[in-house]
Amino acid sequence: MIVRPKPSTLRLFFILQGSILPTIAPRLLMIAALATAVAAVHHFHPGLFGDVPVAPFTLLGLSLSLFLGFRNNACYDRWWEARKLWGQLIFEMRSFARETAALLPPEEAATRQRLLYRAIGFAHVLSARLRGENVPAVLKPWISETEFAATATRPNPNNTLLETSTRELADCVRRRTLSEFLFPTIEARLTSFSFLQTACERILNTPLPFAYTLLLHRTALLFCVCLPFAVVGAFGWFTPLITALLAYAFFGLDALGDELEDPFGLTQNDLPLHAMARTIEIDLRDSLGEKDLPTQLQPVNFLLQ
Amino acid sequence: MIVRPKPSTLRLFFILQGSILPTIAPRLLMIAALATAVAAVHHFHPGLFGDVPVAPFTLLGLSLSLFLGFRNNACYDRWWEARKLWGQLIFEMRSFARETAALLPPEEAATRQRLLYRAIGFAHVLSARLRGENVPAVLKPWISETEFAATATRPNPNNTLLETSTRELADCVRRRTLSEFLFPTIEARLTSFSFLQTACERILNTPLPFAYTLLLHRTALLFCVCLPFAVVGAFGWFTPLITALLAYAFFGLDALGDELEDPFGLTQNDLPLHAMARTIEIDLRDSLGEKDLPTQLQPVNFLLQ
Amino acid sequence: MIVRPKPSTLRLFFILQGSILPTIAPRLLMIAALATAVAAVHHFHPGLFGDVPVAPFTLLGLSLSLFLGFRNNACYDRWWEARKLWGQLIFEMRSFARETAALLPPEEAATRQRLLYRAIGFAHVLSARLRGENVPAVLKPWISETEFAATATRPNPNNTLLETSTRELADCVRRRTLSEFLFPTIEARLTSFSFLQTACERILNTPLPFAYTLLLHRTALLFCVCLPFAVVGAFGWFTPLITALLAYAFFGLDALGDELEDPFGLTQNDLPLHAMARTIEIDLRDSLGEKDLPTQLQPVNFLLQ
Amino acid sequence: MIVRPKPSTLRLFFILQGSILPTIAPRLLMIAALATAVAAVHHFHPGLFGDVPVAPFTLLGLSLSLFLGFRNNACYDRWWEARKLWGQLIFEMRSFARETAALLPPEEAATRQRLLYRAIGFAHVLSARLRGENVPAVLKPWISETEFAATATRPNPNNTLLETSTRELADCVRRRTLSEFLFPTIEARLTSFSFLQTACERILNTPLPFAYTLLLHRTALLFCVCLPFAVVGAFGWFTPLITALLAYAFFGLDALGDELEDPFGLTQNDLPLHAMARTIEIDLRDSLGEKDLPTQLQPVNFLLQ
Amino acid sequence: MIVRPKPSTLRLFFILQGSILPTIAPRLLMIAALATAVAAVHHFHPGLFGDVPVAPFTLLGLSLSLFLGFRNNACYDRWWEARKLWGQLIFEMRSFARETAALLPPEEAATRQRLLYRAIGFAHVLSARLRGENVPAVLKPWISETEFAATATRPNPNNTLLETSTRELADCVRRRTLSEFLFPTIEARLTSFSFLQTACERILNTPLPFAYTLLLHRTALLFCVCLPFAVVGAFGWFTPLITALLAYAFFGLDALGDELEDPFGLTQNDLPLHAMARTIEIDLRDSLGEKDLPTQLQPVNFLLQ
Repeated sequence: MIVRPKPSTLRLFFILQGSILPTIAPRLLMIAALATAVAAVHHFHPGLFGDVPVAPFTLLGLSLSLFLGFRNNACYDRWWEARKLWGQLIFEMRSFARETAALLPPEEAATRQRLLYRAIGFAHVLSARLRGENVPAVLKPWISETEFAATATRPNPNNTLLETSTRELADCVRRRTLSEFLFPTIEARLTSFSFLQTACERILNTPLPFAYTLLLHRTALLFCVCLPFAVVGAFGWFTPLITALLAYAFFGLDALGDELEDPFGLTQNDLPLHAMARTIEIDLRDSLGEKDLPTQLQPVNFLLQ
Repeated sequence: MIVRPKPSTLRLFFILQGSILPTIAPRLLMIAALATAVAAVHHFHPGLFGDVPVAPFTLLGLSLSLFLGFRNNACYDRWWEARKLWGQLIFEMRSFARETAALLPPEEAATRQRLLYRAIGFAHVLSARLRGENVPAVLKPWISETEFAATATRPNPNNTLLETSTRELADCVRRRTLSEFLFPTIEARLTSFSFLQTACERILNTPLPFAYTLLLHRTALLFCVCLPFAVVGAFGWFTPLITALLAYAFFGLDALGDELEDPFGLTQNDLPLHAMARTIEIDLRDSLGEKDLPTQLQPVNFLLQ
Repeated sequence: MIVRPKPSTLRLFFILQGSILPTIAPRLLMIAALATAVAAVHHFHPGLFGDVPVAPFTLLGLSLSLFLGFRNNACYDRWWEARKLWGQLIFEMRSFARETAALLPPEEAATRQRLLYRAIGFAHVLSARLRGENVPAVLKPWISETEFAATATRPNPNNTLLETSTRELADCVRRRTLSEFLFPTIEARLTSFSFLQTACERILNTPLPFAYTLLLHRTALLFCVCLPFAVVGAFGWFTPLITALLAYAFFGLDALGDELEDPFGLTQNDLPLHAMARTIEIDLRDSLGEKDLPTQLQPVNFLLQ
Repeated sequence: MIVRPKPSTLRLFFILQGSILPTIAPRLLMIAALATAVAAVHHFHPGLFGDVPVAPFTLLGLSLSLFLGFRNNACYDRWWEARKLWGQLIFEMRSFARETAALLPPEEAATRQRLLYRAIGFAHVLSARLRGENVPAVLKPWISETEFAATATRPNPNNTLLETSTRELADCVRRRTLSEFLFPTIEARLTSFSFLQTACERILNTPLPFAYTLLLHRTALLFCVCLPFAVVGAFGWFTPLITALLAYAFFGLDALGDELEDPFGLTQNDLPLHAMARTIEIDLRDSLGEKDLPTQLQPVNFLLQ
Repeated sequence: MIVRPKPSTLRLFFILQGSILPTIAPRLLMIAALATAVAAVHHFHPGLFGDVPVAPFTLLGLSLSLFLGFRNNACYDRWWEARKLWGQLIFEMRSFARETAALLPPEEAATRQRLLYRAIGFAHVLSARLRGENVPAVLKPWISETEFAATATRPNPNNTLLETSTRELADCVRRRTLSEFLFPTIEARLTSFSFLQTACERILNTPLPFAYTLLLHRTALLFCVCLPFAVVGAFGWFTPLITALLAYAFFGLDALGDELEDPFGLTQNDLPLHAMARTIEIDLRDSLGEKDLPTQLQPVNFLLQ
């Protein structure tokens, strides 16, 4: 995620970082080259492209804007939902720490530490799985050797971690260190962790319908390819400029939608999962009374990951 | 569901799979043929179609885009809601497995296995009913002969499965192997299964208002039929091209809306119910400690069902 | 609700049932007649209407499309919310049946039958009140004579039914056949019934702001009346055709919004309340072990009510 | 709120009540007068206004429609949310009556009457505060003299009423007439009352951002002032007509947004708070077994307040 | 937040306060100067800019309006969500006060006072952190010296306050002054405080995707720079006027989006956090029976902070 103050109007045009421009540059240059060629041909053979009226292109362009707008909205909703899910994870983790602190008696201090460390492990594993990173590596520091051996080989390590925690809590109920009436309050946190994991998996595994993406990609490209022919009669040598301006807006929104569609990656507009998992680690270890806490991740060159 | 990496700009035009193109090809060819005929007639009898202005068509086309956009939004919302419901089903199933593991004592191991197998059966039956597949066949492996005989003939097998499970849990309460205070925690899962089933039935049984679909189908078709007459004066032999381009966008969105409206089918943009039911089966059997787990369904030729 | 397979492109134009066309036919014919008159006058007195430019009409038409789109969206949301509410009623009823089966002991079988019959009566009464049908007639079969006499005269029979059920459940708690801890689980169902009733009453009693409807009706009509004068110069005898096409789209969406605004009626696009109340009746009587169940309501001539 | 059957097409134009027309009449007449003046000047000095093209105005007009549409949507959402909140208040009140009837024993009948009367008072006070009416007057009949003296002077009487009721319920728990396990079920109703009060206060106290309103008001006015100059060349003496038509749509939507923004007032499109508070009064007194119930408020001249 | 009655049509144009105009004045003047220069050049060298058609600019302008509209919607949603969160905080605080009053016995009066003072501190700290103000200063008056020393140095003071409160409540459970069954009812309030804090942090820390903002800023600026060249042929010396009008709408909406994107600041359209924290302080101290309550914050020069 790009974190920076709003740039001034002037600097606006010299920022490449966080911009969608590098992604669409090839397509944009291709269209500009085509428009230049069309302008050149028109200059030397003026009558060749006839007198194409611009109205049907306006219609097509507006329909395209409308559909791009709707797709962008859907992609932004996915991105914002993903952010909400991770925000909720932070909140549930804090409540988990707070409630275990209050409800488990001092003799269960070791249990509580295991529960909280496992929860930190849960957050790091979730982040690693969503980003295709090394899961065992981020899990190992947070649970015992035995548990690690039994967890890392299971089909869904996140789920296995929660199963172990629920079982530890139920054991507390059995040895009467946790009241049966208060068990559901804590268990509700673990259920939320599971909900948040499944919801993140949903966003990761289910892209927008492919036909939708395909239809918009194709229509946007066809539109930009046809445009120079339509406007060259009126704009002459300004054709590449106006074509590039429109192509910038259309390709830019299209590519931005692609980026937001999968909000868990490592590109510049993706969510800072590492930083959020670190926040969880700090808050839970602070709640355990540890003093040697890691620091918050800071943006590097305005980029927070 | 089509699962594939974003294709390059060039390959974009040669992908048929997942595309809406095959569905709308007949209509598209019809319109292109009409436009060619109009262009030919215009070529040989230039004055015949008069000098039709394009502005009212722009207006009609834009209104149409707007309404198509709204309908597409509604259809996409149905598709995404259906995906959310199945995601929630996976989550509730995992919580069900986790909580029964923790709260039922070892002497209820057989009860727990029956509960989880029945839950797997619930997921397969729900998938089969939503897709019009053979319900008894997918249910038989997961429950006893007696229960199968009593369940398969009932009007709503999903509901009957849940009734049996709730009764088994209540029996545990009666023989004091499950605490009265913890019963509601587990029962809440079964209630969620029921909620998710009813919500899926709602999406399956309630299409968008028919008049809405009819109005848009008709207006889109009338628009594309009238268009060649409006643009032939200006575009001449390019009329079929521009008409086909606009018809592609309008028919494509219309047909895509139709596909997303019923998200449970077997077409290329439908949800992978089989794969999700398989995920549930793996997670629950893993939670039972089984070792010989089935594998995740993989996309065949990019298509996951 | 119209339930039918998607018609082929050709048949599309010969379907009247479920279409909004009959509703708007008078207005449409009026506009077509006006457009024909304008075309005739223009034909014989060409200069009379001057050379009216079409651009301001495009602007007005597009603004109108936009506002119609927003209103349609709001109306569709009401319709879909109403469908969700009834879907939730089916789910809550099934959970009510399941939980009373598990939690009430055999000696309360008669209580349970009264509770479920009363719940069926609740659904039929709600449907009848929302449709302005005869409430006592649909209530009578489901409760005792005495209770009927005490209920039918109260200002809000639905509410009275729930009060009686809550009281019966509280009596079970008092005679110790239902645990105090499990009472809230069942009571939560009755609370949901009450919520769903109130939400349906809200949709029934609160139309869209009248000024909104009025503004759109008036603007749509004025637009269609002015349109022929604007396009007659360019279209000549085709004026009635193009006017009717646009009027069809605008009046159609406007009238469809009116229909969806009140989703509980008996028109072709309204929700099938009778069929859904019947589903509840079947599921609850099946849960009581009854064998002689009524059949699901089937669409008559594609129309399900 | 205006409650009336849909008027026929013809009568549509003669309805003033509920229409936004009276509100915007001054602005509309001003614009029409300006347009007439412009048309007159143009008639006598044809060349004066040059040949202004209409396209930039189309663009400005469409952008304006779009932004007006978004603002209207936001205002309608506020109005509909307010209606939902009051609908939920009715539902929570009914559940409060039902659950206190079932769970409080006969010896607490006097407590129950006090609780329900206080709840009725809560509804009337909320309505009065939202409408700026006399709070003590509507509260006095529902609580004792002593309580009235202690409540009316507090900064937030609604809140004080709830505090008293929670305390009475907790007293029941202390004297063992209400079970500790069932207390949260009833207390949840009071919490909902508090939630609904705070949500209504939010809508009342937080208008749309002022800059938003200002920007749209100004742009709409500037647009309508400039429009006659742009169209007079083409429309001549029809300029006032077309200008007024567009100004009617824009000013109308703008003013309607203003009305819906604060849904609690007494204007024609506001919510019928008095009628809804009366519904609550009837339902709760009916639940107390009272016979001499007030009647539902009826619309006076189609207007329900 | 600007709080003022709707101004009359005439005064509308002389209000600067709350307007977005001062923010965008530099950009607006720059564009107006450019447009004036273009008009001047055109006046003296009429043929220089050729005969640029306005249609592609209409298309670009409309696409831009559409995308601006979507972004504005997203920003407004953030602003309104933030307002809802603070509204919910007020509600949860009131419920916390009400429930502790009823459920804690008189011997825990000192505990209750500490809990409520700490809750007031929580609200002030949250407000200060969201606005980047001095956190220790607003926290100090509400907790003891010892607790202050232990809290102010922790990474997340809000969280630490909640941990302390949960622990105090759990202590009440241990010394049997609060029932185990009623503990979850009060603890649910603290969990809500935590949820609201995390949600506010989410809005504060996660701006809209930077690429989105960048794309719109750039396109809006490029559009306004190109516009004068496109319209100068037709408008001549009116070019600056029409350009400024459009630039006012586009820059205005863009800048307003920027302001609403971060709703916690101190600019004129931001939320009145100080006033809302004061409301919480008044309500909680009133609930403690204090008499010397502070007064509600009032708008200063129509501005409430």
